[in-house]
Amino acid sequence: MPDSAESPNLMEALVSLAKRRGFIYQSSEIYGGLNGFFDYGPLGVELKRNIRDCWWRDMVHRRDDIVGIETSIIMHPKVWEASGHVAGFSDPLVDCKVSKQRYRADQLFWSPVVVDGKVAGYVSALESERTGAELQEAAESFKRKKALQGALAPVVVKDFTEAAEAEIPLIPSPATGEPGSLTAPRAFNMMFQTNVGAMSDASSVAYLRPETAQGMFVDFKNVVDTTRVKLPFGIAQVGKSFRNEITPRNFIFRSREFEQMEMEYFIHEDADWAKAHEEWIVWCESWLKSIGLPDSHLSRYTHPKEKLAFYSRGTVDIMFKYPFGVQELWGIAARGNYDLTQHANASGKPQEIFDETTKKKFVPHVIEPAVGTDRIFLAVLTAAYAEEDVTDEKGNTEKRTVLRLSPRIAPVKVAVLPLLKNKEQLTNRAKALYAKLKRNYAVQYDDGGAIGKRYRRQDEAGTPWCVTIDFDTIEKPGDTFTLRERDSMKQTRITEAELFALLAEHVY
Amino acid sequence: MPDSAESPNLMEALVSLAKRRGFIYQSSEIYGGLNGFFDYGPLGVELKRNIRDCWWRDMVHRRDDIVGIETSIIMHPKVWEASGHVAGFSDPLVDCKVSKQRYRADQLFWSPVVVDGKVAGYVSALESERTGAELQEAAESFKRKKALQGALAPVVVKDFTEAAEAEIPLIPSPATGEPGSLTAPRAFNMMFQTNVGAMSDASSVAYLRPETAQGMFVDFKNVVDTTRVKLPFGIAQVGKSFRNEITPRNFIFRSREFEQMEMEYFIHEDADWAKAHEEWIVWCESWLKSIGLPDSHLSRYTHPKEKLAFYSRGTVDIMFKYPFGVQELWGIAARGNYDLTQHANASGKPQEIFDETTKKKFVPHVIEPAVGTDRIFLAVLTAAYAEEDVTDEKGNTEKRTVLRLSPRIAPVKVAVLPLLKNKEQLTNRAKALYAKLKRNYAVQYDDGGAIGKRYRRQDEAGTPWCVTIDFDTIEKPGDTFTLRERDSMKQTRITEAELFALLAEHVY
Repeated sequence: MPDSAESPNLMEALVSLAKRRGFIYQSSEIYGGLNGFFDYGPLGVELKRNIRDCWWRDMVHRRDDIVGIETSIIMHPKVWEASGHVAGFSDPLVDCKVSKQRYRADQLFWSPVVVDGKVAGYVSALESERTGAELQEAAESFKRKKALQGALAPVVVKDFTEAAEAEIPLIPSPATGEPGSLTAPRAFNMMFQTNVGAMSDASSVAYLRPETAQGMFVDFKNVVDTTRVKLPFGIAQVGKSFRNEITPRNFIFRSREFEQMEMEYFIHEDADWAKAHEEWIVWCESWLKSIGLPDSHLSRYTHPKEKLAFYSRGTVDIMFKYPFGVQELWGIAARGNYDLTQHANASGKPQEIFDETTKKKFVPHVIEPAVGTDRIFLAVLTAAYAEEDVTDEKGNTEKRTVLRLSPRIAPVKVAVLPLLKNKEQLTNRAKALYAKLKRNYAVQYDDGGAIGKRYRRQDEAGTPWCVTIDFDTIEKPGDTFTLRERDSMKQTRITEAELFALLAEHVY
Repeated sequence: MPDSAESPNLMEALVSLAKRRGFIYQSSEIYGGLNGFFDYGPLGVELKRNIRDCWWRDMVHRRDDIVGIETSIIMHPKVWEASGHVAGFSDPLVDCKVSKQRYRADQLFWSPVVVDGKVAGYVSALESERTGAELQEAAESFKRKKALQGALAPVVVKDFTEAAEAEIPLIPSPATGEPGSLTAPRAFNMMFQTNVGAMSDASSVAYLRPETAQGMFVDFKNVVDTTRVKLPFGIAQVGKSFRNEITPRNFIFRSREFEQMEMEYFIHEDADWAKAHEEWIVWCESWLKSIGLPDSHLSRYTHPKEKLAFYSRGTVDIMFKYPFGVQELWGIAARGNYDLTQHANASGKPQEIFDETTKKKFVPHVIEPAVGTDRIFLAVLTAAYAEEDVTDEKGNTEKRTVLRLSPRIAPVKVAVLPLLKNKEQLTNRAKALYAKLKRNYAVQYDDGGAIGKRYRRQDEAGTPWCVTIDFDTIEKPGDTFTLRERDSMKQTRITEAELFALLAEHVY
């Protein structure tokens, strides 16, 4: 089997399957779409719900130390002043005055073109991953176009954000290929802004939250005062966040509206934060594996000390090998007591806990594992997708597409297939089984087409098991069905009780 | 037991319980709150999730004819032009030029004060429910203030929206009590507006969706093309919607950010829409009862034909007796094929289905049951809340507060209580049971305080059952626990297997 993540066309295949089978649609597609917004279709919403629900069960219900909340998307604007988002949550934006195109400066690269030791001009490129090659190509093309003689020096990749003021007029716009039209980078705040109430002026400005985390900090005292939590404890939340990305990209990886699953784990100010931090990294890695992400696609990235914010003790990202490269999936940050302190200062309300042992009040520290549901969704699709050559009983080889989704998160847990749709004895038994399964499981009744075709359809949807009600079911003793397993394609016979036991074991 | 919905202080009691026990907090409370926005605390989020999940299971998983989707909150602005929201989704707004207060004209009432047959002046009031009495009082106070003699005629309640232009300068502002400062009503669009992308001008305007329903219409063709649905079928969605209410009120009943559970049920253009409509009304009523809302609090309101939009075939609201009056809970509308036709015209993409029998294409009609999760939440609290006098074994009477929540939606299904917290034999058995229950149920381990106090605490949280591990458990054969039932407060002995069977029966 090929390593699916190595396939150069994997991303294309995923986007195509996602659309074709109703996992993900472009938002408002009949109106030409809206850049950076996506809808989840019938299979997609079930997969997304299962990811979210598994996370909630494992994070909240099955632990004793974590409670959940759901805070509003629009919060008091002072929340975002205190958190630092109003002042600092921005991307560096560059305008091309001629084309009216806009670029994220940190995704814009450039190089002087040096021929025989002399600067002959400048070139630019987008797309950070391919910068070197693109700039090299642009430099060669520049030389050809200008009919320059002599040796071309190697390209020096420069980040636009670091360009000196004097250099900016020399850097060509990627849109026009000519210098002179790019502005210096300016900070563009990524929070979506709106107005609450009937007045539409500065007094009514509010923001769509760019993260769910602040909800946990702002409600910290309420949770402490109205529940029986004791340190260490966590507050978890799942919900939508919004970021007005200048260049949304990579499908649902970086979109403007997305769902987060965040948890703030509060610890004593004297606790061993590094130990707690490491424990949460391990927990997150192990949870990702529990929903089917393979070790081979996961890695860690430790943020270098010098790049951390002043209050940060350390941040580790769990990285995933997406089709477009290794990218951040889950960030686990040790944030000290920065957030609670900021809100205490801004609101004038102390955010403290009383220590029964030392009889002192203190502001707890926090470990924050923050992940995006959509990023997990895309990781899950990436790891699950496979195309295989399979040979049928007659020796014919055909291609099958299969989503090897974990039964924990598969949209359909089991498909019930009567061998024939016009044989009442078969369909009655199939419908009875279907009705029984449906009370507790997402299950599909599928009687359309040849049995092999139905298996393929379920393979593509990621259904772990198909159960076929055939003549052996109704004619032989034991009331057994054919159980067909998605990954091995093996077929065995199984009773109803065994089927329920199988589901109870794997769907948890 | 008193009929809880009759209690004049019920609303106050609910808000207080909601805050005290962590069901609902004011959003951004440490910053003084944000009018019309609420957070759900640890118990609240579980109750809300259970309402949502029950709806999804019953509406999507347990039916064969309905699929789910999740569409983005920010959609293409043309969606809202086609749907009519840009032009028509507005409330009539009145400004008081002196106080800068703003009012919804349809919540502003007024009356001429007639003394001895002559108009002596005008009075106004807000609050539609109390209009008559409030205006009467205002009229009498007006008469006293002006020291007018003679008989006061009965108050004539007039609606501000119906005020003739000439009368507006005569109507006093509720803020100042003086006439002359109110403006004529103007349409105030209730959609929250924002800008998508780096440009902040008319070209980038977008809206936060004021309803989830349009997502189903806009994705209609995608769902038809990528699944195997056949008419009649439905598309369901749960998600946040936003309405910039001029006067949000009644706690979570009318807030600016809320969650909807909507379903669009598509039927053949020749189908009997009235039958389908009635079937859905019955389904919704029966679903509300399945999560514990009593018949006594439910009623129907049929919108009069003359008040319907031109395309509407009929709308019936399921009404609920809230503490502040009987109000709309669930609207079930027969909308013809208006929405799909609007989007077909606006997008240029036909929204049709091919009829295999007649070989003709047609635009399906739709029945739309639309309900707010938060309104169900408040209805559930209203119906479940009770205060009772209870007498203990020693003959002492005390008050208990209990939430009689259905086990289907109760935040905690069962609490496990070791009789004593410092007796290892008890706590070990309790912890083992707790761990086993936790795999499948939301369960609480509670060892703090006297057993009676713990029962009360669970009563207030709406936990249907408490299981106490006592000396009989560890000393007598059979490994039985004390099962204490919330509503009857009866205690019986139960085995672990019986407890699991009880949960499986009632939590579905």
